[in-house]
Amino acid sequence: MRKEGIDLDLIKEMCQTLDKVRAQSPLIHHITNYVTVNDCANIVLAIGASPIMADDIDEVEDITSISSALVLNIGTLNKRTIQSMIKAGKKANMLGIPVIFDPVGAGASRLRNETTQRIMEEVKIAVLRGNMSEVRFVAGLKATTKGVDASEIDKNMTLISAAEIGKKVAEDSNCIVAVTGATDIVTDGRRAVFINNGTEHLSNVTGTGCMCTSLVGSFCGACEIDDLFSACIGGICAMGICGELAYESAGKCGYGGFHMAIIDAASKLTSETMVRRAKINEA
Amino acid sequence: MRKEGIDLDLIKEMCQTLDKVRAQSPLIHHITNYVTVNDCANIVLAIGASPIMADDIDEVEDITSISSALVLNIGTLNKRTIQSMIKAGKKANMLGIPVIFDPVGAGASRLRNETTQRIMEEVKIAVLRGNMSEVRFVAGLKATTKGVDASEIDKNMTLISAAEIGKKVAEDSNCIVAVTGATDIVTDGRRAVFINNGTEHLSNVTGTGCMCTSLVGSFCGACEIDDLFSACIGGICAMGICGELAYESAGKCGYGGFHMAIIDAASKLTSETMVRRAKINEA
Amino acid sequence: MRKEGIDLDLIKEMCQTLDKVRAQSPLIHHITNYVTVNDCANIVLAIGASPIMADDIDEVEDITSISSALVLNIGTLNKRTIQSMIKAGKKANMLGIPVIFDPVGAGASRLRNETTQRIMEEVKIAVLRGNMSEVRFVAGLKATTKGVDASEIDKNMTLISAAEIGKKVAEDSNCIVAVTGATDIVTDGRRAVFINNGTEHLSNVTGTGCMCTSLVGSFCGACEIDDLFSACIGGICAMGICGELAYESAGKCGYGGFHMAIIDAASKLTSETMVRRAKINEA
Repeated sequence: MRKEGIDLDLIKEMCQTLDKVRAQSPLIHHITNYVTVNDCANIVLAIGASPIMADDIDEVEDITSISSALVLNIGTLNKRTIQSMIKAGKKANMLGIPVIFDPVGAGASRLRNETTQRIMEEVKIAVLRGNMSEVRFVAGLKATTKGVDASEIDKNMTLISAAEIGKKVAEDSNCIVAVTGATDIVTDGRRAVFINNGTEHLSNVTGTGCMCTSLVGSFCGACEIDDLFSACIGGICAMGICGELAYESAGKCGYGGFHMAIIDAASKLTSETMVRRAKINEA
Repeated sequence: MRKEGIDLDLIKEMCQTLDKVRAQSPLIHHITNYVTVNDCANIVLAIGASPIMADDIDEVEDITSISSALVLNIGTLNKRTIQSMIKAGKKANMLGIPVIFDPVGAGASRLRNETTQRIMEEVKIAVLRGNMSEVRFVAGLKATTKGVDASEIDKNMTLISAAEIGKKVAEDSNCIVAVTGATDIVTDGRRAVFINNGTEHLSNVTGTGCMCTSLVGSFCGACEIDDLFSACIGGICAMGICGELAYESAGKCGYGGFHMAIIDAASKLTSETMVRRAKINEA
Repeated sequence: MRKEGIDLDLIKEMCQTLDKVRAQSPLIHHITNYVTVNDCANIVLAIGASPIMADDIDEVEDITSISSALVLNIGTLNKRTIQSMIKAGKKANMLGIPVIFDPVGAGASRLRNETTQRIMEEVKIAVLRGNMSEVRFVAGLKATTKGVDASEIDKNMTLISAAEIGKKVAEDSNCIVAVTGATDIVTDGRRAVFINNGTEHLSNVTGTGCMCTSLVGSFCGACEIDDLFSACIGGICAMGICGELAYESAGKCGYGGFHMAIIDAASKLTSETMVRRAKINEA
């Protein structure tokens, strides 16, 4: 293992996951928001997996059962779909299907907070993917027992302290945590990596966080349960590289062309490109 | 009528329908899924018709009443909108407005299966548009009385046997059936044609099936009830040709650029291009 | 003040609002339709503001409370979200947050009519943005007391008579009214301007009306309550100029490329471009 870099085997494993996604085309069940759902479906297709969106409580168990991963995204949550998320999540747990959870806007309303807490408590999450603010909210859920208090954390926290929060959540919830931002952090509580792919311009297109979560779902859907750490890194890294490629090819157009170029990049992404461009370091 | 081809009058009639769509701009009421709804609206506008999406049970009758066709798409069905679909469908039947039904994912969950069955039973469908798997599910609904058992049908079925299933459904349900795939099949039970337009890449963009159904709705909305067979062929063929044109112009971009190019192609499609590029053969 | 033009100070003020939007990035709460929601979010980001979409009745007050403007759009209204619109609107009123209302399809169904009436009655609207048909419907709501009868108004009404209807609604409802069409009209009942930016091609892409409303929301979200008249003009004018720029750069592509180019244009729009291209005249 290189001191400044990351185990090359991990990068290879991660890249092989992309090849697996394209070979297996895993079905990824989404219960997600109506703002970015089209982009999520299209990036899942572009990366080689197969999306299915279904949210009625009377069919989510059926759909989860035929899927390889379940993505829960509370971007436009409502009481009807919250019930469906819980039910689908429990079914996925029963069947050993990984659940990827994107707590969009956790912290912004009591409903989002309570729903985030409920999903974290009632469903065994395989991967939690959020921005620092959302992950800090989740960290705070166990503040009284674990001593993490999001409100005390400096907004200008260092990457190291951010990684500590991620690790704490990963330990508390026994899941992989992916915190995306200028530098992304992926940790399973024991291991942690920093990913420096991506571009700040990604935040100028709605749903790039959601798309990132859907890519993580796609990578996880093509992997064994023991390989989710590298699968998660692969999904996060793929999103960042797609952002870079899109900005290189279409950044001059504006955000509309850039938006479409993200999907273009995903559809042309190869494991070779990922190996060449990945900027992954041990935390 | 040419042995190897299709009645040239039919091709002309079909192309004249495009001109009618552009001249009349029929209003097409959609009760459809939230994944692909924006693309459906945009391709309807691009082909020259006018989309309206409305799904509340207290307004669907009003909206159907001012429309020229009704598109029902169960891609993200839920119990609220299922009721609206049935109500709108019955209203359309009362008023002689054609109902185009896309049973997205029929076979994948009990809710989709029951809803598909219910819509087929309670609403008089003018055109059923689905992939082979979905149409086989519908065929199986009458399996006990009609001897069609979807489960027995070889996945590698020949086009001829696929056309037979389509015909059976068309006869059973007294509707036009459009089965889309590498080769599309359109049949009214008596007549059947194969359409060889399109490109395999269409399946890499979400919603191209839904868009196809919306084009069929647009063509049907500009026609008399007796001309729906050629209108349906027109809609299916238009989608295929848009896919070809889009791939020619933007296939090299990736799926994002290809996606937008489908709408571009629809907005520039002319009846002359349709006549020139249509690959329609008698089944 | 120039006889043929408009107060240059107003144009400057309007353009400074764009700079304020980009500097402040106001959060714009939308309760809107699922057809065009992605475009609304993206144009809000492109113009420099920040979108949040939330429609559950148990969270809309929380979300409105942290926002700088509230956009209500009834494009795909249903009984669940109607309640949420009313609740969010009342909260916005309590907090002095401007409410921008887009009565999509008012006149087309009883549900839309009743909802439009209810929102106009129960919520203090800051800006009403609609096409002439929708604004005429609102005008008709007070027909019996105010003498405006939409049904009597000639479809080929002159701009002057259209402005009169806008003014009447603005007076009746004590709000700013923006009527968009070939020539846009913005009036607060006392003052009125005509805006001649835009292109007829905007109506070939779904949601350009919704996007316009979202831009108005973005501009209003960056302004004091006393400056909403110029903010509203700014939002309307920005949409028109984006349409022009998009058509100049991508009109030849077709409506798919044009659609993305609208977002491109918004992301690159500057106050200098707005001053140079604005075609605003006193009514």
